[in-house]
Amino acid sequence: MQYRFSDNVVSLNPSAIREILKYASDPEVVSLSAGNPAPEAFPVDAVREITARLMAEHPIDALQYSTTEGYTPLRTRLTAYMKDKHQVGTEDDDILITAGAQQALELAAKALINRGDAVICEAPSFVGSLNSFRSIGARLVGVPVEADGMNIEALERALKENPNAKFIYTIPNFQNPSGVTMSWEKRRRLYELAKQYGVIVAEDNPYGELRFEGENVPAIKTLDRDGVVLYVGSFSKVLSPGLRVGYAIGPKELLKKMTVCKQGEDVHTAILPQMICDEFMGGYDFEKHLEHLRAIYRHKAGLMLSLIDRHLVPAGVTYDPVQGGLFVWCRLPDGADMPRFCQEAVKVHKVAVVPGNAFLTDEKEPCQAFRLNYSTPTDEEMEVGMERLGRFVAEYCR
Amino acid sequence: MQYRFSDNVVSLNPSAIREILKYASDPEVVSLSAGNPAPEAFPVDAVREITARLMAEHPIDALQYSTTEGYTPLRTRLTAYMKDKHQVGTEDDDILITAGAQQALELAAKALINRGDAVICEAPSFVGSLNSFRSIGARLVGVPVEADGMNIEALERALKENPNAKFIYTIPNFQNPSGVTMSWEKRRRLYELAKQYGVIVAEDNPYGELRFEGENVPAIKTLDRDGVVLYVGSFSKVLSPGLRVGYAIGPKELLKKMTVCKQGEDVHTAILPQMICDEFMGGYDFEKHLEHLRAIYRHKAGLMLSLIDRHLVPAGVTYDPVQGGLFVWCRLPDGADMPRFCQEAVKVHKVAVVPGNAFLTDEKEPCQAFRLNYSTPTDEEMEVGMERLGRFVAEYCR
Repeated sequence: MQYRFSDNVVSLNPSAIREILKYASDPEVVSLSAGNPAPEAFPVDAVREITARLMAEHPIDALQYSTTEGYTPLRTRLTAYMKDKHQVGTEDDDILITAGAQQALELAAKALINRGDAVICEAPSFVGSLNSFRSIGARLVGVPVEADGMNIEALERALKENPNAKFIYTIPNFQNPSGVTMSWEKRRRLYELAKQYGVIVAEDNPYGELRFEGENVPAIKTLDRDGVVLYVGSFSKVLSPGLRVGYAIGPKELLKKMTVCKQGEDVHTAILPQMICDEFMGGYDFEKHLEHLRAIYRHKAGLMLSLIDRHLVPAGVTYDPVQGGLFVWCRLPDGADMPRFCQEAVKVHKVAVVPGNAFLTDEKEPCQAFRLNYSTPTDEEMEVGMERLGRFVAEYCR
Repeated sequence: MQYRFSDNVVSLNPSAIREILKYASDPEVVSLSAGNPAPEAFPVDAVREITARLMAEHPIDALQYSTTEGYTPLRTRLTAYMKDKHQVGTEDDDILITAGAQQALELAAKALINRGDAVICEAPSFVGSLNSFRSIGARLVGVPVEADGMNIEALERALKENPNAKFIYTIPNFQNPSGVTMSWEKRRRLYELAKQYGVIVAEDNPYGELRFEGENVPAIKTLDRDGVVLYVGSFSKVLSPGLRVGYAIGPKELLKKMTVCKQGEDVHTAILPQMICDEFMGGYDFEKHLEHLRAIYRHKAGLMLSLIDRHLVPAGVTYDPVQGGLFVWCRLPDGADMPRFCQEAVKVHKVAVVPGNAFLTDEKEPCQAFRLNYSTPTDEEMEVGMERLGRFVAEYCR
C-alpha cells in the first residue's frame, strides 16, 4: 500500500531532540536534555489523598463523559485565580481546559491557520509548538530573541512582510530554550503591534510561576482590552505533566471555535486529572507549594550555574543568567557543528544535551548554542554530567 | 479585533445535538439523546482500588511526563489481547494510545487529508467524527447505510468519482446512530475495494464488545495483510469515557506520522488513566466485566424496544432490531420536519431525542429518522420519556 500523506505532515519527522533522547535512555548516559519537573517537585501525598477522596465521593463524575469546555469547578477557580493573582482575563474572555498547554496552542493554530499562513515565533523557540504549527500547515517566521525578549524591530518587519500572519507565538517568561524573559517595555510594544496588525498573540506561560529570583513581569494578557491575546497556562510544571491539564484564557469568539475543534479532537480533557487539579488548588496551600518548587529550582539552577562556571566557561562557553524556569542556554565559541557536537557528547561522552538547531524555524541553520536542563537530574548526576561535558568541551574547543 | 478563522473551521459550529442537549439539561426533561454509558456499568470499586494502589506504588510514574506512543505495559497488553481475542493486528502493525477513539480518527485525518480531499463515510454516521474530519478540511462523501451496512455499489461509485478520497470511515458494529452491523460479506468487499483504490479504511469499533445478542462478526482488520486498515478501539464504552483512553492499531508507517501529530497535540495521553486501564485489564476478570455490561444493555435495550412497540409503532414508527450498542434508530412516516419535531419534543413535551439530520454529511438534507438512546436513562426515566414521546408522535402523525 502506498500511503499518501497530507502536505502538512509529509516532511514532518520526529524532532532532533528525540534522536538525542533515544541515546539518553541508555543508563550510562547522564541526561541534561529533558524538560521534566524534578520528581521531588510532585506533591505525592496530596495527590494520593485527593485521588482517594474523589474516588470515594465522586466516582461516577470521575468516570463519566464531561463537557468539552472543561470541569466547571476548575474553570471557575482558575478564572478567579488568574484574575485575582495575575490580572489575566476580562469579562470578554472565556476559559477552555485543554490536554496540556500544547493542545491549546494546536487548537489556536487549527482555528486560525490556512496552509501557508504565517506564525511569527521567537527564534529559538519550543520545538514541540513549532512542530504543532507545522502539522497544521503554518509557515514559521522566526524573530531573533535578545536578552530582553524578541527583537521588536524585526517583529514589526515580520508583520509588515507577512500580511497572512495569524498569530505571534511567544513564551515571555524563562523562554524554552533560551531562558530569556521579555521586558515589560517589549511586552507593551508587542501588544501594540499585534493590535495594529490585527494579529493574535499566543502567550504561552508554563514557567511563569517558577521565578526564583528577580521581579515578576506582568503577562502581556494584562494589557488586553481588545481581544488580542490568547493566554495559555498549564499544570505541567506546577503540579504534574502526566495529568495533561492546561488551559486557555482568551476572547470568547476565538475560544468558541477552539472548543468546536477540541470536540473533534478528544471530546474533553480526561476528567479525573481535571478534578485532581481543582482539588489541589482549592484544598491545599497552592502558594506555599509554589514556594517549595521555587526553592527546589533555585537550588538546582544555582548548582548548574556554578558547574557551568567551573567546567564550561574556562573553555570559552558563554551563557545568560537565569531567574526561573528549567533551562540554561549555552553558546560555544564560533564554528561548532552543533548537531554533531551533541551526538558525540551523548554517544562518546555519555552526556545528553540538546542542539540549539532543534529550536530554530529552520533546523538546518547553523547554531552555536545548546540547551542544558537542571530540573530533571539529581545533584550527583548534574555533577557527573557537567564534568563529562566540561572535558568534552575543552577538547572540542581546543 | 476582527478574527480571521481558517477556511476549515469558519463555518464549523457546535452540532445540532448540542442545541438539543442544552434543553436536555432541564431537570424536567427526560433525555433519550445522550450516548453515555449507564452509571451502573462503571466498575467503581475496582477503579477505586487500582487508583489507590497506583498512587501508593507508582506515584512518580503516574505524575511525570510519559511517551507519545503510550504507556508501554498497556500497549503490550492491548496488542496481545486484540491479536489473541480478535485476530486484530500483525507484525507490520503498531499500536498508539490516544485520548479516546476520537483523537485516533482526528490524527488519521491530519496525517492524510489535504483541504478538499474526500473522506467516504456512512450516511448517517457519528457527528463527532464528521465534525472532526471537517475541521481538517475534509470533504465528506456519504454512502447510504442499509440493514447489513454500507451500500457497496454506492461505495464503489464514490471511490471511482473521488480519486482524492483518503479514507473510508466506518463503524461496522452497532453503528452510531443507525444501530446497523455490517455483514461479513460486505466487510470483505469493502476491504477489497479499499485495497484496489489505495484508500485507507478507518474502522471505528467502540461498541463491538457490547453485543448482547447474535453472532460476532470479525473485524475488517482481521482481513488486513496489505496495511490498508487502521483499527480504532476505545475504553469509553467498556470501562469509562471520562478517562479518555483509546487506541489505534495500524500500519507502522501511518502510525509513525500520527505519532508525530499527536506529539504536537497533547504530547501524550494522560498517564494515570492509561495505568488504570492497564491494571483493570490485567488484574480483574475483563471478560466477566464485559458479560456484566452486556447483561445491563440487553435489559435496557429489551425495555426500550418493548416501549417503542407499545408507544411508537401504533403511530406508524418503524425501526430495525438491535443486537448491541447503545442506540435505536426510529423512522417516522414520510413528511416530518425532523429538526422541528425534535425541538418540539424537547421544548413542549420534555423528552429529548436527536434528529437524524445531525448525522448526515449535509445536515440540511431531509431525514425521517431520530436516534433513541437506552444506555443513559434509568428504567423509570425510559418509561416516562417514551410515554411522552408516544403521545407526541401520535399527535404529530395524525
